[in-house]
Amino acid sequence: MRYGFGIDVGGTTVKLGLFTESGELLEKWEIPTNTTDSGSAILPDIATAITGALSRHGIDRESVLGVGLGVPGPVDSRGVVDHCVNLGWPVVDLPESLGKLAGLPVAAANDANVAALGECWKGGGQGHRSMVLATLGTGIGGGIVIDGKMVYGAHGAGGEIGHIPMEWDDPETCGCGKRGCAEQYGSATGISRMAKKAMEESDKPSVLRQLPQVTARDIFAMGAIGDELAQEILERYYRFLARFLAAVCCVVDPEIVVLGGGVSKAGAPLLAGIQKYFNRYVFHACNTVEFALARLGNDAGIYGSFKLALDSFGGTDERK
Amino acid sequence: MRYGFGIDVGGTTVKLGLFTESGELLEKWEIPTNTTDSGSAILPDIATAITGALSRHGIDRESVLGVGLGVPGPVDSRGVVDHCVNLGWPVVDLPESLGKLAGLPVAAANDANVAALGECWKGGGQGHRSMVLATLGTGIGGGIVIDGKMVYGAHGAGGEIGHIPMEWDDPETCGCGKRGCAEQYGSATGISRMAKKAMEESDKPSVLRQLPQVTARDIFAMGAIGDELAQEILERYYRFLARFLAAVCCVVDPEIVVLGGGVSKAGAPLLAGIQKYFNRYVFHACNTVEFALARLGNDAGIYGSFKLALDSFGGTDERK
Repeated sequence: MRYGFGIDVGGTTVKLGLFTESGELLEKWEIPTNTTDSGSAILPDIATAITGALSRHGIDRESVLGVGLGVPGPVDSRGVVDHCVNLGWPVVDLPESLGKLAGLPVAAANDANVAALGECWKGGGQGHRSMVLATLGTGIGGGIVIDGKMVYGAHGAGGEIGHIPMEWDDPETCGCGKRGCAEQYGSATGISRMAKKAMEESDKPSVLRQLPQVTARDIFAMGAIGDELAQEILERYYRFLARFLAAVCCVVDPEIVVLGGGVSKAGAPLLAGIQKYFNRYVFHACNTVEFALARLGNDAGIYGSFKLALDSFGGTDERK
Repeated sequence: MRYGFGIDVGGTTVKLGLFTESGELLEKWEIPTNTTDSGSAILPDIATAITGALSRHGIDRESVLGVGLGVPGPVDSRGVVDHCVNLGWPVVDLPESLGKLAGLPVAAANDANVAALGECWKGGGQGHRSMVLATLGTGIGGGIVIDGKMVYGAHGAGGEIGHIPMEWDDPETCGCGKRGCAEQYGSATGISRMAKKAMEESDKPSVLRQLPQVTARDIFAMGAIGDELAQEILERYYRFLARFLAAVCCVVDPEIVVLGGGVSKAGAPLLAGIQKYFNRYVFHACNTVEFALARLGNDAGIYGSFKLALDSFGGTDERK
């Protein structure tokens, strides 16, 4: 029996998973992310955590096929990350650095991209060979899987769909410094912003007006109980997402689009809302692209990271 | 020595190329495309042409690694095309149908996608592993190469970037039946349309006003000799293309974007014009995406089709 690790490095915690080669999750746990001193302790901490898990489970290093690592920054296909602002990292060759510390083969990629690989393997995209993951949270993260493989991008920016320019001249800037990025409209923050504008532009009464701050959740909840203004905002939001996802589908034409992140908790109405407008915007051959919700939640990263290790160092996966 | 064929099926002519396994083009020629009777003679005509070439060059079938075929319609990764309107074809399993007729292994793909593969192999993208080809002609065709391989798309629509929705409410419809498609603005037809609008909206004198019909070529020519209105139209056009190509790059993050089609004859000023605006719209990690002009012209299809056959049936290519 062989084993592997899937590790998801976040700004606050590092999530770790120990898997069997066949994809069974034996243990998952977290350690804090130590971002002091330019994050120099993070990789040593991970190596220590790996050693601890091997000893707990009585596994020797020879039985470990490798370690997959997802990190919040642009990672090229060799596993070199070019600055992780949240961690304090400069340019780091992750396979080399963690490989030496852990004494194991290491593959690394961007965290949103490994999440896509995880959802395609064991989540909302299971059974599909090509998939787009759109994570609708504070911003929009994304990852593309084609022919079972993650699209790294030549500069580690494959699947950075949240920064597709969608509007010409928005006066407000995106967190990335540009204007008109998809995540300014399609994220949880985006729909709140849409709601604020809609309330300013119309006199229509709405329960939303009584709330000190309107969240995505409020808008979905009020829309569901018949609040007209909330419903108008939702229609505008669905139409935006349809147009945005149609743009992505015209480039890579996936089998399925999987929606994750906080907004995806809205569930079936979100899927139905997008599908209502999608065919108006997408190239006709893509009319049958499927839509689904992400299923792995916060575990997508460890599943995807392990799958990356399996694809890189495993020898028995028929989907390689 | 082994050989292969690269074949590009168009609505008027079929272009054929006989290549050595190392990629040398030994002969290229054309036969007419017979679209009568739902195009039922096209594949038999191609098989006859192949047999003729083998006999002319004294090559036996055992020395042929295979045939690559590019066709103007959506083709899935098994080589099945789902209607070619220009040829009259219904759903056709090209590897099976042509394979039987020619007695050779056949791989097939969409013509714009094989052109991208050709340009990446021996044209403007030579030396790169990932590339976006944007063909700016009457419409906009496109093809994506990632890790040296063509992106077919799950419904044969990989690289259909000309139909990315770019505007919300254009009153005019695109040839595909939708509104606001990239090719309505970014193609040769698109810039002519922009020029027409600009002449209507402004009183600025311009040589363009003296022409019975304003083509892309006229606009570039008049812009180059200092016509102010032409220059304004060009800036608007460059800005559009920058925003459009930035959207594509945020999805797949290629090493290089190659521009082909009639508009690309404008050459260096076109590249410089796009690059002037590109970084305003693209995700910062993609700031270093390169731009180049296509180099194979009408031969991109036969080169790319042959490369597809080589990747599918050849055994010696180090880039596989």
